[in-house]
Amino acid sequence: MTAQFQAKNPDFEKRVRDSFARQPMMAHLGVEMTEVAPGTCVLDMPYNRELTQQHGYIHGGALATIADSAAGYAAFTLMAPEDSPLTVEYKLNILRPGAGEHFVAKAHVIKPGRTLTVVQADVYAVRDGTESLCVTSIQTLMALAGKADDLRYAPPG
Amino acid sequence: MTAQFQAKNPDFEKRVRDSFARQPMMAHLGVEMTEVAPGTCVLDMPYNRELTQQHGYIHGGALATIADSAAGYAAFTLMAPEDSPLTVEYKLNILRPGAGEHFVAKAHVIKPGRTLTVVQADVYAVRDGTESLCVTSIQTLMALAGKADDLRYAPPG
Amino acid sequence: MTAQFQAKNPDFEKRVRDSFARQPMMAHLGVEMTEVAPGTCVLDMPYNRELTQQHGYIHGGALATIADSAAGYAAFTLMAPEDSPLTVEYKLNILRPGAGEHFVAKAHVIKPGRTLTVVQADVYAVRDGTESLCVTSIQTLMALAGKADDLRYAPPG
Amino acid sequence: MTAQFQAKNPDFEKRVRDSFARQPMMAHLGVEMTEVAPGTCVLDMPYNRELTQQHGYIHGGALATIADSAAGYAAFTLMAPEDSPLTVEYKLNILRPGAGEHFVAKAHVIKPGRTLTVVQADVYAVRDGTESLCVTSIQTLMALAGKADDLRYAPPG
Repeated sequence: MTAQFQAKNPDFEKRVRDSFARQPMMAHLGVEMTEVAPGTCVLDMPYNRELTQQHGYIHGGALATIADSAAGYAAFTLMAPEDSPLTVEYKLNILRPGAGEHFVAKAHVIKPGRTLTVVQADVYAVRDGTESLCVTSIQTLMALAGKADDLRYAPPG
Repeated sequence: MTAQFQAKNPDFEKRVRDSFARQPMMAHLGVEMTEVAPGTCVLDMPYNRELTQQHGYIHGGALATIADSAAGYAAFTLMAPEDSPLTVEYKLNILRPGAGEHFVAKAHVIKPGRTLTVVQADVYAVRDGTESLCVTSIQTLMALAGKADDLRYAPPG
Repeated sequence: MTAQFQAKNPDFEKRVRDSFARQPMMAHLGVEMTEVAPGTCVLDMPYNRELTQQHGYIHGGALATIADSAAGYAAFTLMAPEDSPLTVEYKLNILRPGAGEHFVAKAHVIKPGRTLTVVQADVYAVRDGTESLCVTSIQTLMALAGKADDLRYAPPG
Repeated sequence: MTAQFQAKNPDFEKRVRDSFARQPMMAHLGVEMTEVAPGTCVLDMPYNRELTQQHGYIHGGALATIADSAAGYAAFTLMAPEDSPLTVEYKLNILRPGAGEHFVAKAHVIKPGRTLTVVQADVYAVRDGTESLCVTSIQTLMALAGKADDLRYAPPG
């Protein structure tokens, strides 16, 4: 997968990791970026009781969040230096409950494009070293041209 | 909208609110349930810098999480007393960035069913009392028969 | 719904109807355009045994096709004169089988944009004058700038 | 892919092919079933001017129809003898226009289940023997228990 695409931006990895480090939501969920390559991004989130739903499983929203971020960064690896990614939409199926010691979101670009990039992002639950597919998704990202990938919104209050 | 459906379970509101109170993820995001009626659920989440992405907007994953929970509880209001909801899948479009003082997820059932329930859930950003549509979604929920809606997963460690 | 948006192209209706008339697939399925207004398009397809699946209901693919076309033309009504619509993606839920004398696809724009437009398109089965919701969908369309909306593909053979 | 699953019904292939043969819509579009195996189904549709949109490409609705049917039959291969498949929902992205001599829909089950089965279905355009991915989709199918997979709807008129 990682050899399939060429990054337009030789500095793509630094750019992706810097942007990731500026996402407070990722720290809030305890997510780490474990792999980044042209067209690919892998994130890892440990089980955390604070992120669960009523049955003790990881909340689907936390799984969706890492699928979403992994997809965005997979798309970002292939973008031109002056572009940054915006999530347009996604669809996901929850195949199994979020039960495991940690959760791995693996995203790879299916179809890059100048404006739109389509990404598949899957989330696996890992128990005793065995991965089970929990979430599969298809995501559409848009390249925002000429936008710096940093703070632009002055939060209220 | 709220008059369109009849709850099978006269105790639906207590059941929904109890389940919501048992979701640590909702507390983690600071979400409150502001409305629940047959076929409808409304959740409210304040802006919180910890839930943002790299631009300072609320992370799409946090918006997805409240859309997901609101949809699940809207479906739950119409289920039989012995059933509990499971999210099968959803698709969402992000229409505007998550910029506002707080975010309101409004879910209403489009089509209830014995096994599957289809729900529309929209998320609005509220600024100075004005609501702007940020996220629209269609969600499919399944009724799990004979499952108590409480802890069943013994977390690792 | 129809008063909510302003068409940028005063000639939008002629443009939409001309494009529709150039879709052989629409004739193949017997579809007519019954309404077009800024941000809205309604298509009508009669029941036809040739379009059914194994149970005698209209094939989901035929319902998807009219939802897709209606959404595309709803988006087209709001585009600049030099743009034409391209379907990026959609998600649909089939809520009821396609049983009826005819089928009405109603599309309305949820969020127009310079590049992307998001549309909701629903399909109703009509029996004895009563409409039942069969399909609900969310669709994303892209404006192709500077592309004439006519034949560009020389078919094989 | 084909070795991954076991069919519960030893007679699955005959059952799938018989059902396919009873879909008038498949004949209307000129579709053939070229492969069926446990968890997998492949359909083939030739280019046909009658199925095109305004640019001369195959209409997205025709591509969706073969993706939908292929997914349904892939799910059907794994169902119990007394069950038949119902499409609950799907999401598809159109990655390239439908330009080619023929179009191949390849569906494979991602997650089978007693009630719900999740399937990925992709459609490729074939030109001069080369396949290009046009459509990717995720589909959810439901097993209808105790329903014979034959005519149940008396069409109007």
